[in-house]
Amino acid sequence: MKLYTYFRSSAAYRVRIALNLKGLAYEAVPVHLVKQGGEHLRDDYRAMNPSALVPTFDDDGAMLTQSMAILEYLEETHPAVPLLPAAPRERARVRALAQIVACDIHPVNNLRILRYLVRTLGISDDAKNEWYRHWIGEGFAALEAHLAADPAPGRFCHGDAPTFADCFLVPQAYNAQRFNIDVEAYPNIARINDACAELPAFFAAHPAQQPDAE
Amino acid sequence: MKLYTYFRSSAAYRVRIALNLKGLAYEAVPVHLVKQGGEHLRDDYRAMNPSALVPTFDDDGAMLTQSMAILEYLEETHPAVPLLPAAPRERARVRALAQIVACDIHPVNNLRILRYLVRTLGISDDAKNEWYRHWIGEGFAALEAHLAADPAPGRFCHGDAPTFADCFLVPQAYNAQRFNIDVEAYPNIARINDACAELPAFFAAHPAQQPDAE
Repeated sequence: MKLYTYFRSSAAYRVRIALNLKGLAYEAVPVHLVKQGGEHLRDDYRAMNPSALVPTFDDDGAMLTQSMAILEYLEETHPAVPLLPAAPRERARVRALAQIVACDIHPVNNLRILRYLVRTLGISDDAKNEWYRHWIGEGFAALEAHLAADPAPGRFCHGDAPTFADCFLVPQAYNAQRFNIDVEAYPNIARINDACAELPAFFAAHPAQQPDAE
Repeated sequence: MKLYTYFRSSAAYRVRIALNLKGLAYEAVPVHLVKQGGEHLRDDYRAMNPSALVPTFDDDGAMLTQSMAILEYLEETHPAVPLLPAAPRERARVRALAQIVACDIHPVNNLRILRYLVRTLGISDDAKNEWYRHWIGEGFAALEAHLAADPAPGRFCHGDAPTFADCFLVPQAYNAQRFNIDVEAYPNIARINDACAELPAFFAAHPAQQPDAE
């Protein structure tokens, strides 16, 4: 198994966490998103992943893309350490929490969007940072409200074992902290983020622990 | 089963298609995203869905959110008409195609983002439309390349029966056409969109067929 990854990529970070939680060994192949105009934009990378985004996951020649699709695949092919609960309604809750990050928060704040705001629309750095904080604020408020409404709160997003939702929450909290957003203002997000940080699987997936960390 | 929906909402449209393909009857409860400042922003709606987005799916009191999580739930609870193939690698491909729409295209072009661009950043209508076309162009090029690379192309995104991927492709093609984007420039997307349009399940889910259509 090979993971085409970039240390700071939120989507790659999610997959690294899931692989670690499941105890699956993989080879990390760094793809630099900034140097040389972005290695992900090169033809050889696009041939593997026409979306020109990281991560790409190579499982014995099957080239898989999109972090959530990769997590579902790992869950189906390596179910021994489950990252989804058993009951359909609970699975739906976990996936919805993950998708608040995957669909509502992260897409509007990733590198290509921020670049377009600055380079094409010509907005100021201050307005760009305010954009970032606005969408994190909207998304974290929603995520926090979902978590606070849990009738049976546990140590993690859903119960006392990590799930997909935690694999998505932690990279997004990391991103927020990089933009000086006070995660403590969201008590459940902060509490769960801290609980995850104590687990070796999350620690080893952290951007600072990657071979391509700068 | 109740679906809180808005006729033009892309995410609600996906769920309507899936419900129809599976032959599941449901009550449509319209939530107007524009009138009265947006009915989705009211406290009673937020109590059901803290993200204040449509759709919300009520299955006998379980309030489910996020269109992809709802589709996975329907697949698990009503497997008779499958919308995912059986093999994990094929399932991963279908989910990745859906997620190109769900994570890379739609989130940056939905109503709240376009409003922020105009109202908060003060960009012109022309620049807003160019933003829309830019991200559709990026995303459709990627989706088209993924579809064109299919070693065994069928009538739909994956083989000869509709899957999650088609449930996501069709509403996005509808959105693109509303912004006068030439979908025919993407031959596989156009071909599959036309094939879907012939199916009653897709026709009945179309915005123009909804009780709240304007």
